[in-house]
Amino acid sequence: MEKILSYIKNNQEKYVEELTSFLRIPSISTSEENKNDMQTAAKFVADKLKIAGLKTVEIHQTAGHPIVYAEWMDAPDKPTVLFYGHYDVQPVDPVELWHSPPFEPVIKDDKIYARGATDDKGQLYIHIKSVEAWLSQVGKLPVNVKFLIEGEEEIGSPNLAPFIIANKNKLKCDSVLVSDTSLFAPGLPTITYGLRGLSYVEIEVTGPNRDLHSGAFGGAVPNPINVLAEIISKLHDKNGKINIDNFYADVIPLTKKERESFKKLKFSEKNFAKNLEVAQLEGEKGYSTLERIWARPTLDCNGIWGGFTGKGAKTVIPSRAYAKISMRLVANQDPKKITKLIKNHILKLAPKSVKVKVSELHGGYPVITPLDHKATLAAAKAMEKAFGKKTVFIREGGSIPVIATFATQLKAPSVLMGLGLNTENLHSPNEHFHLKHFNLGILSSAIFLDEYSK
Amino acid sequence: MEKILSYIKNNQEKYVEELTSFLRIPSISTSEENKNDMQTAAKFVADKLKIAGLKTVEIHQTAGHPIVYAEWMDAPDKPTVLFYGHYDVQPVDPVELWHSPPFEPVIKDDKIYARGATDDKGQLYIHIKSVEAWLSQVGKLPVNVKFLIEGEEEIGSPNLAPFIIANKNKLKCDSVLVSDTSLFAPGLPTITYGLRGLSYVEIEVTGPNRDLHSGAFGGAVPNPINVLAEIISKLHDKNGKINIDNFYADVIPLTKKERESFKKLKFSEKNFAKNLEVAQLEGEKGYSTLERIWARPTLDCNGIWGGFTGKGAKTVIPSRAYAKISMRLVANQDPKKITKLIKNHILKLAPKSVKVKVSELHGGYPVITPLDHKATLAAAKAMEKAFGKKTVFIREGGSIPVIATFATQLKAPSVLMGLGLNTENLHSPNEHFHLKHFNLGILSSAIFLDEYSK
Repeated sequence: MEKILSYIKNNQEKYVEELTSFLRIPSISTSEENKNDMQTAAKFVADKLKIAGLKTVEIHQTAGHPIVYAEWMDAPDKPTVLFYGHYDVQPVDPVELWHSPPFEPVIKDDKIYARGATDDKGQLYIHIKSVEAWLSQVGKLPVNVKFLIEGEEEIGSPNLAPFIIANKNKLKCDSVLVSDTSLFAPGLPTITYGLRGLSYVEIEVTGPNRDLHSGAFGGAVPNPINVLAEIISKLHDKNGKINIDNFYADVIPLTKKERESFKKLKFSEKNFAKNLEVAQLEGEKGYSTLERIWARPTLDCNGIWGGFTGKGAKTVIPSRAYAKISMRLVANQDPKKITKLIKNHILKLAPKSVKVKVSELHGGYPVITPLDHKATLAAAKAMEKAFGKKTVFIREGGSIPVIATFATQLKAPSVLMGLGLNTENLHSPNEHFHLKHFNLGILSSAIFLDEYSK
Repeated sequence: MEKILSYIKNNQEKYVEELTSFLRIPSISTSEENKNDMQTAAKFVADKLKIAGLKTVEIHQTAGHPIVYAEWMDAPDKPTVLFYGHYDVQPVDPVELWHSPPFEPVIKDDKIYARGATDDKGQLYIHIKSVEAWLSQVGKLPVNVKFLIEGEEEIGSPNLAPFIIANKNKLKCDSVLVSDTSLFAPGLPTITYGLRGLSYVEIEVTGPNRDLHSGAFGGAVPNPINVLAEIISKLHDKNGKINIDNFYADVIPLTKKERESFKKLKFSEKNFAKNLEVAQLEGEKGYSTLERIWARPTLDCNGIWGGFTGKGAKTVIPSRAYAKISMRLVANQDPKKITKLIKNHILKLAPKSVKVKVSELHGGYPVITPLDHKATLAAAKAMEKAFGKKTVFIREGGSIPVIATFATQLKAPSVLMGLGLNTENLHSPNEHFHLKHFNLGILSSAIFLDEYSK
């Protein structure tokens, strides 16, 4: 192990150089004109996996961008870990706000600036390098390893779930390890063990069959905007709880231990509010801000529209009003069930005078990885050793849909060993990645392979 | 009187021919390219007033389109009536839905089809012809008459109120007579004696200082759309009453007599609902639909917007949400006072976690003309004689802002002797005017002058 770690420490410059080459490829998955760059990036990943010493390396073409698969399976009786990552990146607009061109990586203050630096090229590259260190120094890996690197994460992974479903056997594993999330704070080893799911609906309220003049009709007909507002206002109770029957039925409550560990994290609600310039935070009574975001289901209007929205005054009673409403779900809520619950609830709330339509737009399962799972423990220990600090366990408020797919299709829990930072401008201009975390990540990954084999 | 009425009856063809010429002028006030046509239309009106025998006829240029003024003041000790009307018309779009070109009048089934036929060229022309009949047959008028015909009604009369204020003495009168409203039913003589006013505000709710990802923040921050919906939902109580302190304080309640006379009107709530395709009407408890529209103040959202309103699902918590809200007011509510009431009320409803701004967009005073006013009685009697049916008294839910200006600036009540019909497509393609009502209108106007002199 010492040999491997020294090797990694001695090769840091080379790793950064290679990452720089990777970051030069403008692999923007949503952009038609970068289609060839997607192939180039996939080939880059495949080549590096071959160089690392993986025996099987395949590029699978899809209806969209290719999926790279690789494996090393010569550790019988040892568990198998699947590394997941994505080589595609977000668009670069507004490009004029970048201090240096997004695909010409620049190192400044020990951070590397480029689109994709932290999300997710820098993070996925960590595991290729740790595997390479093992194979070059020891000639074998202590566990079985698979890689699944896609090129469509930033556009919703349309071809990944079908690929997983079609290749369940090939992808079979005991756990998935993903580096695509954030450390809770710089230099603080962090495992994310829970993600929220989603149920997203659109409501359409129809009052009169046409737009009406509020002078000639006002007061005598149902106004769909007023009705919609009334419906929305009834979705929460006075304590910020979601007011839908059975909504909380399947929620796994936070354990005392979890709440205590969240409480120990350095997090200032005051600064959080100050940063957002809100005079007061708001949410479900009885829970802290971190608990509300990470471990409690929520309901938010994401959009609303109806009637006259231009400048000035138009006295119209619109025929229709619309809202988009989404609920963040936590384990073990089922988005299908929740969508049905809210749909029926809204229809029940609607007065007879209007027609209401509720359409499902999107759904995703929440996930939670047991804190005592072998892979979780191994990852936590590995980070602890690499960083020289105790690992913290957090959750995240957002969703990574593929994690739910791994859970349902491969029956494999995912360990989220993210090495990014929320402040690294992912999806914004001047994305960057702390090279210190890049290097600590490679060490963590190498130690993880060892710990996971024990 | 008989002589005058026969003269009118014998000249019906001539009147229609003249109206046809008037309707050929494309006097669209909002359209820059029709600027010269506005002058042509004003001149047409002035010429016809001269031909009718009015002694003073003036065209007043304004910052916008001209105002035509005329008077005949040789009836000392007799009251003075001011006829108000407008020669400008609405735009013609969508022009492809017209069955004949909007400025090439066509007569079909005793209706004349053209833009401006009922709103308001046909209706204003009535009074020019009645005055002409009097002066040509008798050589004088039984009362003093003034005409005030503007060219900017369809664009909000920006130059009329300043003109009235600057010419209070010139425009001094005992009553104003306006034909720019509708009969309650075809062939049914109708006086409109009340109009609603308006208070129109825009609300801006600001939550966090920027749009946020609902995954990373949902549940912990105030969502401005949810807050806005909550505010709107609290503006009505369960009985459809407006839930703002003192909102109803200045409302003149409907008299028993008014309610009875409304009840006698042939009006089917069932058909009204059916026509709008609503399963159920909605409004303030304890009032009929006509009462709600005509004589009760109301509150409606006219527009709402915020967050993501495109196709699909975007999990955003927006920084801001907006709504436009207007209240229709009834005598004697003061729009300034009401605007202040709602503003304070909304600020009081808003939770501390958000910033709320309420801006006044528009206001207008409600009006009510006493049913026992001399001019009201004369107009009702005149219509009754011309139509051969008892005149009904109705109110209207909309506003005609100039009527409030007459009330406040000239201290003159307005009698609304409308001869249009709600079904005559004013503001829509295929606007038309029933020639039967055009002719009955000229007779009514001629008889009115006589009745008003008594």
